[in-house]
Amino acid sequence: MIGVGLVGYGYWGPNLARNFSRQADCRLIAICDKSPERLAKAARDYPGVAVTPRYRDLLRRSDIQAVLIATPVSFHYRFVKEALLAGKDVLVEKPLAENNRQAEKLLEIAGRTGCILAVDHTFLFTGAVRKIKELLDSKALGDLLYFNSVRINLGLFQEDVNVIHDLAPHDLSILCHLIDTMPVSVQAMGACHARPNQESLGYLHIEYPDGFMAHFHFSWLAPVKIRQTLIAGTHKMIVYDDMEMSEKVKIYDKGISVSPDQDSMYQIKVDYRTGDMVAPKLAHREALDAEAEHFLACVRDRSQPLSDGKAGARVVRLIAAAQQSLLRGGKKMLINQ
Amino acid sequence: MIGVGLVGYGYWGPNLARNFSRQADCRLIAICDKSPERLAKAARDYPGVAVTPRYRDLLRRSDIQAVLIATPVSFHYRFVKEALLAGKDVLVEKPLAENNRQAEKLLEIAGRTGCILAVDHTFLFTGAVRKIKELLDSKALGDLLYFNSVRINLGLFQEDVNVIHDLAPHDLSILCHLIDTMPVSVQAMGACHARPNQESLGYLHIEYPDGFMAHFHFSWLAPVKIRQTLIAGTHKMIVYDDMEMSEKVKIYDKGISVSPDQDSMYQIKVDYRTGDMVAPKLAHREALDAEAEHFLACVRDRSQPLSDGKAGARVVRLIAAAQQSLLRGGKKMLINQ
Amino acid sequence: MIGVGLVGYGYWGPNLARNFSRQADCRLIAICDKSPERLAKAARDYPGVAVTPRYRDLLRRSDIQAVLIATPVSFHYRFVKEALLAGKDVLVEKPLAENNRQAEKLLEIAGRTGCILAVDHTFLFTGAVRKIKELLDSKALGDLLYFNSVRINLGLFQEDVNVIHDLAPHDLSILCHLIDTMPVSVQAMGACHARPNQESLGYLHIEYPDGFMAHFHFSWLAPVKIRQTLIAGTHKMIVYDDMEMSEKVKIYDKGISVSPDQDSMYQIKVDYRTGDMVAPKLAHREALDAEAEHFLACVRDRSQPLSDGKAGARVVRLIAAAQQSLLRGGKKMLINQ
Amino acid sequence: MIGVGLVGYGYWGPNLARNFSRQADCRLIAICDKSPERLAKAARDYPGVAVTPRYRDLLRRSDIQAVLIATPVSFHYRFVKEALLAGKDVLVEKPLAENNRQAEKLLEIAGRTGCILAVDHTFLFTGAVRKIKELLDSKALGDLLYFNSVRINLGLFQEDVNVIHDLAPHDLSILCHLIDTMPVSVQAMGACHARPNQESLGYLHIEYPDGFMAHFHFSWLAPVKIRQTLIAGTHKMIVYDDMEMSEKVKIYDKGISVSPDQDSMYQIKVDYRTGDMVAPKLAHREALDAEAEHFLACVRDRSQPLSDGKAGARVVRLIAAAQQSLLRGGKKMLINQ
Repeated sequence: MIGVGLVGYGYWGPNLARNFSRQADCRLIAICDKSPERLAKAARDYPGVAVTPRYRDLLRRSDIQAVLIATPVSFHYRFVKEALLAGKDVLVEKPLAENNRQAEKLLEIAGRTGCILAVDHTFLFTGAVRKIKELLDSKALGDLLYFNSVRINLGLFQEDVNVIHDLAPHDLSILCHLIDTMPVSVQAMGACHARPNQESLGYLHIEYPDGFMAHFHFSWLAPVKIRQTLIAGTHKMIVYDDMEMSEKVKIYDKGISVSPDQDSMYQIKVDYRTGDMVAPKLAHREALDAEAEHFLACVRDRSQPLSDGKAGARVVRLIAAAQQSLLRGGKKMLINQ
Repeated sequence: MIGVGLVGYGYWGPNLARNFSRQADCRLIAICDKSPERLAKAARDYPGVAVTPRYRDLLRRSDIQAVLIATPVSFHYRFVKEALLAGKDVLVEKPLAENNRQAEKLLEIAGRTGCILAVDHTFLFTGAVRKIKELLDSKALGDLLYFNSVRINLGLFQEDVNVIHDLAPHDLSILCHLIDTMPVSVQAMGACHARPNQESLGYLHIEYPDGFMAHFHFSWLAPVKIRQTLIAGTHKMIVYDDMEMSEKVKIYDKGISVSPDQDSMYQIKVDYRTGDMVAPKLAHREALDAEAEHFLACVRDRSQPLSDGKAGARVVRLIAAAQQSLLRGGKKMLINQ
Repeated sequence: MIGVGLVGYGYWGPNLARNFSRQADCRLIAICDKSPERLAKAARDYPGVAVTPRYRDLLRRSDIQAVLIATPVSFHYRFVKEALLAGKDVLVEKPLAENNRQAEKLLEIAGRTGCILAVDHTFLFTGAVRKIKELLDSKALGDLLYFNSVRINLGLFQEDVNVIHDLAPHDLSILCHLIDTMPVSVQAMGACHARPNQESLGYLHIEYPDGFMAHFHFSWLAPVKIRQTLIAGTHKMIVYDDMEMSEKVKIYDKGISVSPDQDSMYQIKVDYRTGDMVAPKLAHREALDAEAEHFLACVRDRSQPLSDGKAGARVVRLIAAAQQSLLRGGKKMLINQ
Repeated sequence: MIGVGLVGYGYWGPNLARNFSRQADCRLIAICDKSPERLAKAARDYPGVAVTPRYRDLLRRSDIQAVLIATPVSFHYRFVKEALLAGKDVLVEKPLAENNRQAEKLLEIAGRTGCILAVDHTFLFTGAVRKIKELLDSKALGDLLYFNSVRINLGLFQEDVNVIHDLAPHDLSILCHLIDTMPVSVQAMGACHARPNQESLGYLHIEYPDGFMAHFHFSWLAPVKIRQTLIAGTHKMIVYDDMEMSEKVKIYDKGISVSPDQDSMYQIKVDYRTGDMVAPKLAHREALDAEAEHFLACVRDRSQPLSDGKAGARVVRLIAAAQQSLLRGGKKMLINQ
């Protein structure tokens, strides 16, 4: 039985509480929030669970082995650090931290203490992304060529962050999950339509050492809602459309084959190939439920989470580079390997 | 009655012949092509029309007032120049010329000789683009915010040019037609998947002095065919989807309104607005038929074509800048005003 | 302040409780259910509300003016009758009753007692149906020509009823709401694929005195989910697609105009008309919230509900006729006027 | 080398001429049409082919082995009969004849003379229908449950026939091609919106001895164009959408399995099964080209055409029964076996 404490009972915290409280071999022991209203709601929702406005109460309890952190990002660094130093395993909301330095430091502490550090990149636990990961791992797509993602909507303008900070973590966590190598460069362009210095439209362009390329279109100010990712390989290509009700992932047996032209050693011949399209059955399970189960298994077995601190730090790093590029008018920012 | 001569009877020439030969007050007088086979086909298709392998035969005829040029782009500069110097009006295939210098020179000659110089940007004469132009001219969209276009497919790899040279002229001619000012910068990124040094995937990013931004995604190597353009203004937003059978243009009464927050002079309040969507009836006429009629009217009235040499030169200039940016790894290329 | 009692806290009852308990000038006073588990849940969900396993407890309370009935249909007749005879206003789940005789009797009692009798046809309160009703009432469609509805899915096989009993009430309540006259005939065909004598595929065909025609396709055994209704008039035509996220109602300015041919008095000339398509903005409010407000207003003002007992009885009558036709192999059943 | 003669050079005849004239081992020898204008056009289109206004000229030529008949249906009976009696093989436009009696007579003559009689049901030669036929023949769908087809549009009102006569032959030829047994009954309902006694909206319902059921919705007066057929079996289900550009046939691994409930010998348990969806690659070849090749192979090998006189007669019979049902207000018409 793993005891779990939760800090932050605002927008996302209740989802964590609901999903962890129904896992086998897990007990939600305490919920912490500094707002009396939110704490009262937590007490009503979970009568048998302790509530406290003091984070240290969670850390002091020996029956709490893992801490779930769902606070605003400005608290992440301090709360994760204190939990790790108290010997607790941690699942923290994305993004892991506010900047690279913080992220690196947390990675270092987790390594030193031997505690599990996982970042809540929920998309990785959807049936769609799991199926895509499986396809890439089995090399079904052949050599990967590009990744192109569109995530646009007439969306809620955030208070403090721009559209890239808001939306890119979803797609970047998927990208980093699928592609293991580190990019060499990041470029970002954007436009501010409502508030000055707050981009509501953003493009992100990421290049890899081997020529693989990822491109992203983010917008809070689009007439239609699009959530579509193209992933192309030399053998097959994937369209992942999150707005589709039942066929979110389509695998196209399409591509080109390139061969030297027989007539000339300097020419190249491009042949097109089109075959069947398959929309595989996807698991329907709620992503956060699968994620909770996975995190608890990692805690139990001391194994590495799918979305560990390193993955979280990589996303933080790419977003930081994008922000730098934005400030410099789309200049290409190199990523130190 | 306007006499017309055509040079080039390969892929596009027959379409020009067909559409000009059926215009009122116009007569197709002669067709020129250096290939005997193509010339023989022209003679079969149009029994009453003269055929010749020599371009100068067209230019010498006093009954030919206008020359239609549908040759490979490497001939454009010479053929357009000679026609203008011979006092002929000209409609030339896109792109106008191979480089800026050529394009500027042709503009200069056209100005000096007083001849009409038009570039065949057929898309401008589609019902969809005409409706969009009408909407923008009437200020129905409010202040323009951005233009985003996707033109991808598992398409035919061209022999000599990359995907941006191949596909961008369509979208850039539309952009320049809708937006009268000149951009300040161009960036392009791309990847080569079949032949080295020939991009089959390309992104183009264009910025304007007032913050307006245009972004393009081109691909010959996509699993699905997409031809979709978003054009957003402060009042309305347009989705132009050329793959739609009957509702190619959708006008969304969606947007945001920004006002200073009453509670604080430093805060800004963003309100969302969503209203009806209208898909207006579009003219079904073949674009090239409308274009032929328009060109002949310009010849008759000595008026300026919708898609004149200046428009053609602007597209050439943007593509050249994109090519420069590609070579320099996505560097922002400034456009001299 | 209107006091309300609810009987039945199974699948639908909690939705009624939630929506009525948040209406202004309304108080949910008591909840009745014979199951101790469901009653315990009601007590947890609504701490201040009385709970009882005895229906008569609701009817005895003088602070309850209206009773909401969300029990299985086999209880409807008795519970509605007793409520009306106790002087209570009633909102009862669809269908109103098990057969015509019961429905007519309840209508009669409601008329005699002066109590409000409303049937919960929730679809009538959706933004989509309200907009369509508004269009028809304003004669925007011209003369109505036909109604065609498809409601199919790989759906849940019901225990006791066939697919027409299960799904037709939705579409028939919409049809009867839009078209005020009574049909002259009903035909139904169907096939049983799982259990004998239980249709999982059904077609329903309804004709009106003036030639107007309604046709329905229902299925529990389809590979795709379709919820699409076409409503055509001489001036405009509507496509109502409930699977669309944001443009559920599309109004096509399409049609034909028929005129005597000038050349011949015996000939008729058919002209086609196609114009804009408009997808009007729809109210996003939860249908049951609007319905609760409407029912309470009827109770307060003693006005006639949109979906009154008569509407409920009409739906019961059409379904009964469909069942008769099914049993007789698709024979046309006449409806007495 | 098979010599072919064509009678009728109006709407469809030129397509037959184009496709047969390019087949290997086939020569188009003569074209017949009573209209001088159409005959002149035929002479222009095919300079080396004889033209004649007299049908008997075709029948007399010994170098013509097969006659293609593309005249109005009122000429079919006489022209087919004369061709068969002259020992010619025949491909005749759909429908084979105006009524059952004529169709039966032609069948009888074809049998007696040993000539090939084929009916031009072009849809059977599309990549989509060929793939579906292949799936059904391999029993991939399991036991067939139903066939449901929608073919609607704002279409051209025909002069002489109603919407069922106009559109049903397409779907009925597909149905009869896929399902070998003869139906037991036909019902049809319809409404006349433009001209009296000419249905512009029609429904057709067909039942088979084993409970299999086919249902059709035809309309000339719909706001949207739909061409969608559902074919369901116990193992798999097909959606055939002819409006889709690239994925016309989708095979869903969906269905139910029915088993006796273990708890009770009187109960039945329904389990749902959903798996992958596959859109198989389809042949892109023009249907009429494949049909011409097939017909010529049948002529050469004296083998039975896919769409022979018997298939043509069956479609004529079902349409005649539908017309009878329409006249009797939707009455079920039994088909003699």
